[in-house]
Amino acid sequence: MPNLLIIGGSDAGISAALRARELDPAADVAVLLADAFPNFSICGLPFYLSGEVPDWRALAHRTEAELAGHSIRLLPRHTATAIHPGRREVEASAPDGTQVRLGYDRLIVATGAVSRRPRAIRGLDQPGVFPLRFMADSFAMADYLERTRPSSALIAGGGYIGLEMADGLTRRGLAVTVAGRSVLGTVDPEFGRLIQAELERNGVRVAGGVTVEEIDAGSEHLSISGSDGFRAEAGMVLVAAGAEPATGLARSASIALGQGGAIRVNRRMETNLPDVYAAGDCVETWHRLLGRPVYLPLGTTAHKQGRIAGENAVGGDKEFAGSLGTQVVKIFDLAAARTGLKDAEARAEGFTPLTVQSEFWDHKAYYPGARTLHVRVTGDRATGRLLGAQILGHWQAEVAKRIDVFATALFHGMRVEDLDQLDLSYTPPLGSPWDPVQLAGQAWCRASEGRRDV
Amino acid sequence: MPNLLIIGGSDAGISAALRARELDPAADVAVLLADAFPNFSICGLPFYLSGEVPDWRALAHRTEAELAGHSIRLLPRHTATAIHPGRREVEASAPDGTQVRLGYDRLIVATGAVSRRPRAIRGLDQPGVFPLRFMADSFAMADYLERTRPSSALIAGGGYIGLEMADGLTRRGLAVTVAGRSVLGTVDPEFGRLIQAELERNGVRVAGGVTVEEIDAGSEHLSISGSDGFRAEAGMVLVAAGAEPATGLARSASIALGQGGAIRVNRRMETNLPDVYAAGDCVETWHRLLGRPVYLPLGTTAHKQGRIAGENAVGGDKEFAGSLGTQVVKIFDLAAARTGLKDAEARAEGFTPLTVQSEFWDHKAYYPGARTLHVRVTGDRATGRLLGAQILGHWQAEVAKRIDVFATALFHGMRVEDLDQLDLSYTPPLGSPWDPVQLAGQAWCRASEGRRDV
Repeated sequence: MPNLLIIGGSDAGISAALRARELDPAADVAVLLADAFPNFSICGLPFYLSGEVPDWRALAHRTEAELAGHSIRLLPRHTATAIHPGRREVEASAPDGTQVRLGYDRLIVATGAVSRRPRAIRGLDQPGVFPLRFMADSFAMADYLERTRPSSALIAGGGYIGLEMADGLTRRGLAVTVAGRSVLGTVDPEFGRLIQAELERNGVRVAGGVTVEEIDAGSEHLSISGSDGFRAEAGMVLVAAGAEPATGLARSASIALGQGGAIRVNRRMETNLPDVYAAGDCVETWHRLLGRPVYLPLGTTAHKQGRIAGENAVGGDKEFAGSLGTQVVKIFDLAAARTGLKDAEARAEGFTPLTVQSEFWDHKAYYPGARTLHVRVTGDRATGRLLGAQILGHWQAEVAKRIDVFATALFHGMRVEDLDQLDLSYTPPLGSPWDPVQLAGQAWCRASEGRRDV
Repeated sequence: MPNLLIIGGSDAGISAALRARELDPAADVAVLLADAFPNFSICGLPFYLSGEVPDWRALAHRTEAELAGHSIRLLPRHTATAIHPGRREVEASAPDGTQVRLGYDRLIVATGAVSRRPRAIRGLDQPGVFPLRFMADSFAMADYLERTRPSSALIAGGGYIGLEMADGLTRRGLAVTVAGRSVLGTVDPEFGRLIQAELERNGVRVAGGVTVEEIDAGSEHLSISGSDGFRAEAGMVLVAAGAEPATGLARSASIALGQGGAIRVNRRMETNLPDVYAAGDCVETWHRLLGRPVYLPLGTTAHKQGRIAGENAVGGDKEFAGSLGTQVVKIFDLAAARTGLKDAEARAEGFTPLTVQSEFWDHKAYYPGARTLHVRVTGDRATGRLLGAQILGHWQAEVAKRIDVFATALFHGMRVEDLDQLDLSYTPPLGSPWDPVQLAGQAWCRASEGRRDV
């Protein structure tokens, strides 16, 4: 009956708790939670702020009552302040300000990440300027939107959150400008341009190649200025500059750090300290294709790592098989998805990549409603091995699950040529006898062999 | 510069021709075609007859002009009447009734399948009674529908074509009755019942467990009778009793037959005769999971086998990796998909299967439009290996591509437990941090270990 203590009640922490309870009903499982929102869907925040999800309570992956039903002891509004590995104890400040001490047999550190605050931007601390990561950020922004009813917003950052919020705030009636170095830099620029066109089609102004430098309070609006003479006025600013691992607590307990300043873990999610595991956005992640750790915080990975940490913490012996960086984002009517490496990433890793982009119907064109899918396949010229794929298309054109077929193929180290052999489903309203996944593979093979298109 | 002759211009034959031309631009490629519709989408016929595809010409996977552009010599309305392997010659009757002789260096037999005509049904040859496989069947039925405007139809057979046509004819305004031993017997009865409910919700009468025995011409309607006292009247009858391989030509040339009376081929698509290949619905198919040939005619498989036969016929050395029987069908608002083995099939093959059915949202329930997916996972108790999966849900809930993730996992012989490790994509409008594919795997693992649901 191990005493399992988990610091952090988001995806990784709660996944660990649930898995531990599932495998060892006798385990005593407690979760220290800095806020009062265990296992809330961070990825859902843009949809709450857009108005598509009217009630924020719906964002809980699991309710507190459900967690209590599984005999998981939640300690909300408890901020862990120190780990004492020697005496296997964690100190935390309780909601009433007192310090509490909690012993453990096994500890899981799942402190997550925090929004990056770019030092280059002056004026981040003004009213009307927001990060977006926690429920509290979300409430603050919702309150501001309700109270001041801004007619415009500037979003600094063209990544996932920035673009989802450009969609969400436009839906809410605001005039939105996105200023960022790139538009969805997680996919190749060819797709970035198509996404920019979709943003503009929906009225979003896109200032590409721009770095925001200063935010000034004006009489009615915030004034924003940036590189290349960029100037804008807006009723609010969202700073969406990515995330960095929250590791202060771990560092002060001499838990070793690794890639990207995240906690170093092995594939069993063990840190350098005995009986101390870590998982989620605060740890480095084993990259299955690269065969080495990287910093790549994703909700899906946090769930997996948490589950494995929870399993191993109650005596299991499970290894994390690794991430491929599989991601999808919906922006207005488009879904953009990727798995594995982009061309430039593959090149930087020493592969000799070839990336081939082609277009297909999502299903037989004769059946109503067919839509174009853009597919980019990156393969290694030297070995023929699949290195990555990107798909862009209408969000209801099965973009996400098609990238999952690529991801499953990548997981198994398939060669591009062999995608053809996969026995995929077909009916005219939903596909074609060769799925676009396979047609894109065939296009890659033709290009790599210098054959003409038949 | 081999002289390649192909008998049959549907999926397998045309795929073979295109692949041969692609790899060997010097090859002389000719295709004997019994009708005048090369590479038409048989799977599209129900959507033409339903009115969803107004022009039958749209059903061509590739137009005749496209094929001519690839220097593929089409010989339409040529019926092959004999193969003379000794002198490498094929005899065919030309449209004008004359016999022609065509020599070959390599021959590909792609004669396809024909609709099964159940001997147990009396009265199949009457006006108003139709099979559905070829363009000619389709034209005959379309003409009859146009001319006599029947208000009702009886469909004998509850398989793919029967149910797609129940949907299609209902859409056209006919009152439809389906009589068949089972409702979509390719999935488990649990799903069959849900599909029956969907049919009934749309006004289709379903007579399950019934075998049609006799069709009589009445004064205004056809009178249909069957087992268990079944009686019905209808303005037309579709007999959808499956397909059987068209092998008369092959047999008379001493080409050996195998499973299901289909042409025996190895994984290079070679028959027992030198330089004679065969592919598509006329051949037996290597089953990847069973490791032996079966008869399992599917359009996707025909394309693959044709492509491989075409490659090998011009000097390639490619093996067919095998089928998993992956299929999907749209029936009204539902899509039903399967891959691998059903529970009963797995048992019959000597596995000790466990099948677990569970239900999930297709995406996070808080985002509008979430729909229920029913997922059945069949795994081997002894080894933990994934044996098959079935999914049923709204046709726009990414059922098809989710079965493809299972199919890709099966292709690689994954264990159910390891589905968890796949790095699949996630965004709230399109999925959840664990995709239903993985949640269904987790449910299977819990059931197989006798653990409670957490």
